[in-house]
Amino acid sequence: MKIAVLGTGEVGHTIATRLAGLGHEVTMGSRSADNPAAKEWAAANAAAHGTFAEAAADAEIVVNATGGLVSLAALTAAGADNLRGKVVVDVSNGLDFSEGFPPKIVTPDGVSVAEQLQRAFPEARVVKTLNTMNNAVMVDPSRVPGHHNVFLSGDDETAKAAVAELLRSFGWGDDQILDLGDLTSARAVEQLVGLWVRLYGALGTGDFNFAVVK
Amino acid sequence: MKIAVLGTGEVGHTIATRLAGLGHEVTMGSRSADNPAAKEWAAANAAAHGTFAEAAADAEIVVNATGGLVSLAALTAAGADNLRGKVVVDVSNGLDFSEGFPPKIVTPDGVSVAEQLQRAFPEARVVKTLNTMNNAVMVDPSRVPGHHNVFLSGDDETAKAAVAELLRSFGWGDDQILDLGDLTSARAVEQLVGLWVRLYGALGTGDFNFAVVK
Repeated sequence: MKIAVLGTGEVGHTIATRLAGLGHEVTMGSRSADNPAAKEWAAANAAAHGTFAEAAADAEIVVNATGGLVSLAALTAAGADNLRGKVVVDVSNGLDFSEGFPPKIVTPDGVSVAEQLQRAFPEARVVKTLNTMNNAVMVDPSRVPGHHNVFLSGDDETAKAAVAELLRSFGWGDDQILDLGDLTSARAVEQLVGLWVRLYGALGTGDFNFAVVK
Repeated sequence: MKIAVLGTGEVGHTIATRLAGLGHEVTMGSRSADNPAAKEWAAANAAAHGTFAEAAADAEIVVNATGGLVSLAALTAAGADNLRGKVVVDVSNGLDFSEGFPPKIVTPDGVSVAEQLQRAFPEARVVKTLNTMNNAVMVDPSRVPGHHNVFLSGDDETAKAAVAELLRSFGWGDDQILDLGDLTSARAVEQLVGLWVRLYGALGTGDFNFAVVK
């Protein structure tokens, strides 16, 4: 499948590498066409790189792995035409560390990043997922033993099913994928990141995850 | 131990009943001295009831089981003199359902209810805990099988140890009690309630809890 991964940070790098390893045709997108990190990643993975718009243009699925505070700008650069009808997998978090620790979770008027993206690009099909864990766990859930969960939020059931399929290819079991409902539920998972940051401090490792136990 | 439970709602009722059952001398506090729910509870449990101030006056531990949006008013009514030096167990959530579902989690400027209480009553020793689960699970963790967690946040280590002791008397194991650090970490657990509300909708039961798995 042709997949664009927007973002050249650790999260984008990890997801793009995993997707390329699974045989997908991945293009890493960044602000500029000559981003060194994207160039290096593409060379190492026999994959492509380009601007946000170039990456999104041919993609069937677009992964937003940019920081939540710049995601709207990144998708705007990708362009509404290049996002129309496509599944946008939003793994971002609106964390603002500018005032130190603990970071503020920025959700203007309580609205999640995912909803902001969906409102700006109503013809895209935004699905929030994977933002509640470390990037290594995102693409290899077996790093955390036993039962733990990944959440799905979105307004488009077909898009959520496509994302669930991607998650299964990463190693997530059906019993681990928890559909929270429509995209307003992205508010809940974006707020969960505050606890993640605290636990990262308390546990001293990123190899943990949340489980819902009943 | 002499314990005041402020709040006559479901949460206050459940906690007060459990504490009375464990042999503590419990006083249920409410806005007025003749609150019917408090009166009925006291009669049924051979316990006491009174105003917030009356309840707090003799207590060694004060449990804030009022709604997060009115907690500051409730503790103000209890009175700084009656809170001085005491452990205040804050189990509240600042949920605002006035605009429907999903509720807004009210934390002005990102500051938790627990921190607001601590700032208003600097001589009290506020500990945030138990706010991330249904009240039935709070006092009987065995309702949820297997590994799951209760969080602790607070600036006073001795107060946190006293609250951990209370939690153990409710049935919580040492491996379930997760100390997140100082009281700013209450922000993280107060924000978790948004996900709890979503999961309550998705799972159709309150008998679930969060686990941190590593």
